Amino acid sequence: MPLPSSITELTAALARLPGVGPRSAGRIALHLVQSETGTVKQLANAIVAAREKTHLCTTCGALTEVSPCDICTGPRRDASLICIVERPVDILSVEKGGTFHGKFHVLGGRISPLDGVEPDDLRIAELETRLQQEPIKELVIALGTDVEGDATSYYLAKRLARAGLKITRIAHGLPAGTGLEFADELTLSRALDGRREIS
Amino acid sequence: MPLPSSITELTAALARLPGVGPRSAGRIALHLVQSETGTVKQLANAIVAAREKTHLCTTCGALTEVSPCDICTGPRRDASLICIVERPVDILSVEKGGTFHGKFHVLGGRISPLDGVEPDDLRIAELETRLQQEPIKELVIALGTDVEGDATSYYLAKRLARAGLKITRIAHGLPAGTGLEFADELTLSRALDGRREIS
Repeated sequence: MPLPSSITELTAALARLPGVGPRSAGRIALHLVQSETGTVKQLANAIVAAREKTHLCTTCGALTEVSPCDICTGPRRDASLICIVERPVDILSVEKGGTFHGKFHVLGGRISPLDGVEPDDLRIAELETRLQQEPIKELVIALGTDVEGDATSYYLAKRLARAGLKITRIAHGLPAGTGLEFADELTLSRALDGRREIS
Repeated sequence: MPLPSSITELTAALARLPGVGPRSAGRIALHLVQSETGTVKQLANAIVAAREKTHLCTTCGALTEVSPCDICTGPRRDASLICIVERPVDILSVEKGGTFHGKFHVLGGRISPLDGVEPDDLRIAELETRLQQEPIKELVIALGTDVEGDATSYYLAKRLARAGLKITRIAHGLPAGTGLEFADELTLSRALDGRREIS
């Protein structure tokens, strides 16, 4: 007996989610068809509601239900300091640290000619508009430390350079709580490059 | 910045699915709110459709879109042979083997007084009705081999016993393709008990 087609279709749809393999998709599908209809509809509604309510902030590109988002309109946020990140979720990572009090700008990717991502595909023009309209004094580039992250950072630093604007990049070095023996050569050499005087 | 509440609600709903932890629920939720609305609605519809179309076969208790199910109405199925399983998905396991050509009966659980599952909570009365109406000659009990599975099997054998009806239980023994060194004592002693003459 093959499974009813509605179950195999659901399994296929679930298996396209990140981190869900065919086996766990099957398990979830069988769980759902045997759950109470009310619970199942709640899940389906939560999925649609989250998608429909969530938008990208028109200013910074963050995930938000109101646009501009809470950070862009936050009165306690330092409007002179903008942290540039790749994806909306990166904002969460920075916010978890709790020490950054500026605003954000989501690029929406990084320059990667091999993947067909050109500067025009990123939200750089939007950032240039913000530089004209907002009292921005410093851009902190917080992209990944791989080749594309490096290339995008240098491209941004060059393109966005203007008088009175400081452009910085977050430090690269040893992660907190680890020893030298766990760091690879590149990390270590960047940590050395970025050494600071102990005051 | 906390995440929009629609996203945290979706994450909570996803984390209740089997095999989905809070971290992967978060990942799936963020993936969904950034996917195309059409794709997301398709998933939500697939969930609801699978739940609404799928029912338990009124005869055997299998998951099916039509009741009675394809197996119950299958003309090539041996109506004299019924395999008793615990859950609807167990039918799939037996069918995968491809050697069983009888029909099925899903109990919907097994007797477990500690969990509050009494014989009346299982589909035993339905099976008794089938014994009166269908030309059943043999019941093959295919429950798990733990304490509850054993207890339920013996209970069924006693309660369903009647003249002209053979009640059997699937063999317990070594799984295919393994050596003696991987079998625990109980499996081995059951395999010895169940020894057969080589003809």
